[in-house]
Amino acid sequence: MRLPPISPTADAGLEVELRGRLSRKELPEHALGRIEALALQLARIQHADPTQFDPLAFLAPQILVFAGDHGIADEGVSVFPQDTTRLRVLQMLQGTAVVNSLAQLHGFNLTVVDAGLASHINLPSDTVPSATLLPRKIGYGTRNMVLSPAMSITQAVAAMHAGMDVVRHLPGNLLALGDVGVAATSCAALMLSRLCGVPLADACGRGSGLDETQLKHKLQKLFAAASRHRKATAPLEVLAAMGGFEIAMLTGAMLQAASERRVVLVDGFVASAAALVARALVPACADYLVFAHRSAEPGHRLLLIHLQAQPLLDMELRMGQGVGTLLAWPLLLAAQRLLEPQRGH
Amino acid sequence: MRLPPISPTADAGLEVELRGRLSRKELPEHALGRIEALALQLARIQHADPTQFDPLAFLAPQILVFAGDHGIADEGVSVFPQDTTRLRVLQMLQGTAVVNSLAQLHGFNLTVVDAGLASHINLPSDTVPSATLLPRKIGYGTRNMVLSPAMSITQAVAAMHAGMDVVRHLPGNLLALGDVGVAATSCAALMLSRLCGVPLADACGRGSGLDETQLKHKLQKLFAAASRHRKATAPLEVLAAMGGFEIAMLTGAMLQAASERRVVLVDGFVASAAALVARALVPACADYLVFAHRSAEPGHRLLLIHLQAQPLLDMELRMGQGVGTLLAWPLLLAAQRLLEPQRGH
Repeated sequence: MRLPPISPTADAGLEVELRGRLSRKELPEHALGRIEALALQLARIQHADPTQFDPLAFLAPQILVFAGDHGIADEGVSVFPQDTTRLRVLQMLQGTAVVNSLAQLHGFNLTVVDAGLASHINLPSDTVPSATLLPRKIGYGTRNMVLSPAMSITQAVAAMHAGMDVVRHLPGNLLALGDVGVAATSCAALMLSRLCGVPLADACGRGSGLDETQLKHKLQKLFAAASRHRKATAPLEVLAAMGGFEIAMLTGAMLQAASERRVVLVDGFVASAAALVARALVPACADYLVFAHRSAEPGHRLLLIHLQAQPLLDMELRMGQGVGTLLAWPLLLAAQRLLEPQRGH
Repeated sequence: MRLPPISPTADAGLEVELRGRLSRKELPEHALGRIEALALQLARIQHADPTQFDPLAFLAPQILVFAGDHGIADEGVSVFPQDTTRLRVLQMLQGTAVVNSLAQLHGFNLTVVDAGLASHINLPSDTVPSATLLPRKIGYGTRNMVLSPAMSITQAVAAMHAGMDVVRHLPGNLLALGDVGVAATSCAALMLSRLCGVPLADACGRGSGLDETQLKHKLQKLFAAASRHRKATAPLEVLAAMGGFEIAMLTGAMLQAASERRVVLVDGFVASAAALVARALVPACADYLVFAHRSAEPGHRLLLIHLQAQPLLDMELRMGQGVGTLLAWPLLLAAQRLLEPQRGH
């Protein structure tokens, strides 16, 4: 497949100008700590040309949530039945999900993409949707990866292209990316283990709230899937065999957004697994990713370490849906504000 | 001195109602992690009566920054000359400090209190101040605590009363508290060491950016001060001997705000040292304190552990001035938003 071209953002000239704006003679060096690093990253992304340095602005911030179902849900790896994915999407469309409250609070436009739900979404006819639903269904849920690859390579590529296409049609220069799908942490754990060499037992966590016995069961199923797909090692093969429709779309969305020099705000474990693939395919895309938070899922911590990414928040969230991106968003606003030329200097 | 009465906020009835609002059957238990704990704390503070549970609102949020100078600055414990305190206050009044940008971004009203600067603040006559300056000077800087107590007990009590008085006259139900004062981390380190039994070498950090030799020098001076005031053990004695005017005012402000059931958003190491004293004087005040962030100063980490407080952010800030409170503020807004009754439930 043809991947979008992505420029690395490093720029020594810009760096000097920005450090000047951030440092103040009455304050200790690096007084603003990690906010400085964030501000520099944002400026590098938005200003390819250091002579064109204007105050930054985030225009029309978008949150994009990809929804997909997973055949491995049949194996009892989640406490929730598969249909919960559909219910969560319905809530987003009806405006009652957590993400709706936060999107409204922060003025984000919410788009939900049906990447591959196992069923149809039927909104009651009298409902005015609180979010845009984009139908991009690749299939009615992936196949059960314990028994066969979750997707064919063709499906994975089609999903990546769909993710790119969705981003291409969205306005704005900042994109927050989340996901919803019962059993998706199973995919993320398998991808982390295979792509980063993390032992499966460390990558596998309680996800939706498994107890000790259920966790053991999940791990057994993941071992079975990993063994079946032991030959999948290239990023795209791993994505197809052990990922999901929404994860492949996230991957495509990240690559496209980076190629358009958008800031990409990445949610939890599942979205970060997509980032693993995106970075493996086009390393420069890492420059555009801002990791919003570290979730309660232990694999997420290991994944972030592997990416050498320091997430902005650690709120011990046990959910995706882009909620963590919206919690972290005001830190980006603050960082951007601090880059504005200082009055009276 | 007469301390304001503070009611503990625990309320089992309210707890049940709130847990119901936060939990959603389509999500894992505690899906929102630490945001749930924050939401519960905010609701407990604002709703004394569980039958009167209405959607919460933060009204007229205030940020209050206390400024004071420290005689121990004479000992070379900071890389900045004492006059830097005045310059930082001038910047806040002129609207060029970091805290101004963030206060403006988040709609906070900024008040700066001259708790005891070593000099006068003279704003150029043509400047329209960007913040209210309240003159509450207890003295022209504290005394050098290596040689004598920083304050008399009378001064410390007067400063606490001034802090209470300032809060009494501010509107709003949320108060963000910061501080500015060269050499203030020396006070915080000494107070932490004495009040919590932390070894001074662990409590003492680089503050404004000391190098290895300067850090050693600072520690020697702190040992000298600690030895001189070895008999000071009661909270008020410790505050007077090794605190500062702005720290005593912060202590009074916290107690008063808690007694009025305001949410108190606490900044870094120095403000947290004031919280140590406030909590020692009236333990229930801890229910009202939200710790905004963990700073880069190692003593702050130990102080927060002692208070069993989990700060919202860890941005490795090397500055006070209330900046950390404004960075954390949107998390309170998000937490509050999530407590609103769910539509469609």
